[in-house]
Amino acid sequence: MSITANDPKRKTWLEVSQDSDFPIQNIPFGVFLTRDDVITIGTRIGDTAIDLGALHQLGYFDGIPLTDDIFLQDTLNDFISDGKKTWRLVRNRIADIFDQGNSKLRDNEEHRKVVLFGLDEIEMQLPVQVGDYTDFYSSKEHATNVGTMFRDPENALLPNWLHIPVGYHGRSSSIIPSGIPIHRPQGQTLPPGAEEPVFGPSKRVDFELEMAFITTDANHLGEPIPINEAEEYIFGLVLFNDWSARDIQTWEYVPLGPFLAKNFASSISPWIVTLDALEPFRIESPKPEKKLLPYLQFEGKKSFDIELEVFLKPENGEETRISRSNFKYMYWNMSQQLAHHTVNGCPVISGDMMGSGTISGPTPDSYGSMLELSWKGEKPVKLNDGRERKFIEDNDTVIMRGHCKRENYRIGFGEVSTKLLPVFEPKKK
Amino acid sequence: MSITANDPKRKTWLEVSQDSDFPIQNIPFGVFLTRDDVITIGTRIGDTAIDLGALHQLGYFDGIPLTDDIFLQDTLNDFISDGKKTWRLVRNRIADIFDQGNSKLRDNEEHRKVVLFGLDEIEMQLPVQVGDYTDFYSSKEHATNVGTMFRDPENALLPNWLHIPVGYHGRSSSIIPSGIPIHRPQGQTLPPGAEEPVFGPSKRVDFELEMAFITTDANHLGEPIPINEAEEYIFGLVLFNDWSARDIQTWEYVPLGPFLAKNFASSISPWIVTLDALEPFRIESPKPEKKLLPYLQFEGKKSFDIELEVFLKPENGEETRISRSNFKYMYWNMSQQLAHHTVNGCPVISGDMMGSGTISGPTPDSYGSMLELSWKGEKPVKLNDGRERKFIEDNDTVIMRGHCKRENYRIGFGEVSTKLLPVFEPKKK
Repeated sequence: MSITANDPKRKTWLEVSQDSDFPIQNIPFGVFLTRDDVITIGTRIGDTAIDLGALHQLGYFDGIPLTDDIFLQDTLNDFISDGKKTWRLVRNRIADIFDQGNSKLRDNEEHRKVVLFGLDEIEMQLPVQVGDYTDFYSSKEHATNVGTMFRDPENALLPNWLHIPVGYHGRSSSIIPSGIPIHRPQGQTLPPGAEEPVFGPSKRVDFELEMAFITTDANHLGEPIPINEAEEYIFGLVLFNDWSARDIQTWEYVPLGPFLAKNFASSISPWIVTLDALEPFRIESPKPEKKLLPYLQFEGKKSFDIELEVFLKPENGEETRISRSNFKYMYWNMSQQLAHHTVNGCPVISGDMMGSGTISGPTPDSYGSMLELSWKGEKPVKLNDGRERKFIEDNDTVIMRGHCKRENYRIGFGEVSTKLLPVFEPKKK
Repeated sequence: MSITANDPKRKTWLEVSQDSDFPIQNIPFGVFLTRDDVITIGTRIGDTAIDLGALHQLGYFDGIPLTDDIFLQDTLNDFISDGKKTWRLVRNRIADIFDQGNSKLRDNEEHRKVVLFGLDEIEMQLPVQVGDYTDFYSSKEHATNVGTMFRDPENALLPNWLHIPVGYHGRSSSIIPSGIPIHRPQGQTLPPGAEEPVFGPSKRVDFELEMAFITTDANHLGEPIPINEAEEYIFGLVLFNDWSARDIQTWEYVPLGPFLAKNFASSISPWIVTLDALEPFRIESPKPEKKLLPYLQFEGKKSFDIELEVFLKPENGEETRISRSNFKYMYWNMSQQLAHHTVNGCPVISGDMMGSGTISGPTPDSYGSMLELSWKGEKPVKLNDGRERKFIEDNDTVIMRGHCKRENYRIGFGEVSTKLLPVFEPKKK
């Protein structure tokens, strides 16, 4: 089935600015609360949010096999379970409904009133109920930087790194959409030179610039997913800020990996951009430096050229861009990650989220965390107003943005923006 | 509110054998498929399964604030969300309905027909939809054994171990109920002396004898749970076999912890025994060897005296008991685990599962894994029929059982039994 929604020549009757992340070629999926306090599944073109539940009730999806309530839900999980063929039919239909040559909705004011919303009339929600969240560690530059700082610059990469898309399990319950503030976590740390740990607020709160992909139901317990089928099970991607507390991590992570250093919050951009929308932006993956085991060998272009930026905004201050990276730098691609994740028969279901790991590029201005940008705090990052940051301070907001670009249009992710509040103070009883 | 369901003198009009794990003082909760292919929430007394959905529809829970469909669900999550007060009201009422002095249901054949089932008429399901699964590493004997085998016998425990109830995130999607067979996982391993990894079936498949507790909605993002409130949020416990592939683990686990070595399967006993039912079996926790930070200091008896056994049954062979341990050996108790898990503000919700980690006792016959019982394979475990095992072989079944005992009754968990099938063979297309 062709993805007609990707037609670069198509124009829409909705107003869309030239530099919008959401032209009619994007058509992402999300969940929002409307002005009438109804939760619905929707999409976005330009700065207009579109209620897919209302569109479906009005018959605009007739002919596509969808249950009546598929969009009247508070998560996308069931729609994602319907599979790639259905996603394509729906995305193609939406492109058709909003095509400038299609007058059906355009000229029906009654319908437009219940279907279209301004962005200030809605509140974005978490788009999926995340069953399991896995985080990979797939940027060679990031793994090398961390290994250089904390282990041995001569042997920065551990022996397994070039053979395995290293990953570990994360916490689903603390995944939140853009806009929800978080508190500085407290925990145990071992101060330099001390023999006993102390308890208190983390002094090294950090962001991690990542992307995450969201899967559909892929396999049963015991059955691996072959690498060249993996993309069939990827619904789409979001920007992902995997908040980290470096000092808590240092004390806790040997031997079973990071735990409280990570699970206090992970923030995502609320619109899931489909893998289909990213189709024109495929690019070759980096050449493997070691011969890969067969289950990790793939055919074709499995990486994507997505420009990424991180901004830091202090309270009452302006945004400073502190990093500029690209999803294409990932040494291990999503197909390799999913094939590896399931090679032992681990089941993957609709709504599972898989983070890329911090996406650092080759140059110091492309590193994906404060840990690397400030090199453990040794080289503070300069903000536009002259202030400096080693790590994230109270009331700072971290904003990540990402998009793909061609001459004629761009496909973007919007942003994930999260403010770090001071430590939580329990209410006096 | 008193827990009248725990009255040790109470007898029931149902038939219950003397040595049953499920006397009227237990009243666990589970989910089963009935002979009519209906999924319902139920309990069990002796060898009789009780359909709580049917009981509720017939009015037996009148006066308790419950929604009409609370038991007509395929998971316990919503019931667990109702909180401890409701669990107690329901458990006390069930004890009353089945008390030998109560004739209401006993003498109503019509009602008995739709409420009561033989065990051969039902099929147990996973009792909760597990949001997040966390595994701890809280047995000092287990951590010491592992540290002795793989690191340094002189410094077997890592520096953080006596300060932190070490834990890490596991995979929810591969948690299965007793009775579901699993396949031997495949994956990457580094053979002894080799420089490059190979791919193939794990040669060191192991069980881990654990218990897991299931939580209710406990806190919001950012808010810690004080240790002395932690038990308010624990619904109950199950037996937990955290399957492991030791050779995959060795190659993959540095630096981010175990991943594919663990996430191919974790098996649980299907009846959740409530913390209330375990109340009479409280026992002092081991004395801390280091002064604990205040958030980990607790009052009262927070450990539980639960005897645990592991049996191995080869294909067409008999069961051999290969280990005998006790939940009371845990150095860190559940309250400490939950307080630690949330001290950074990580949210815990209804249906989350937290494994204890392998429960090894002080003597070699009380170790909770083949890795320890066979000491890395150096001391094969003898079976009753003369065969030996270093790790688990194809078509072996591993069975775990557990119970608490007083003179007059025992509260048990039934069993978790899982057969290991050979490597999965994809069907030819």
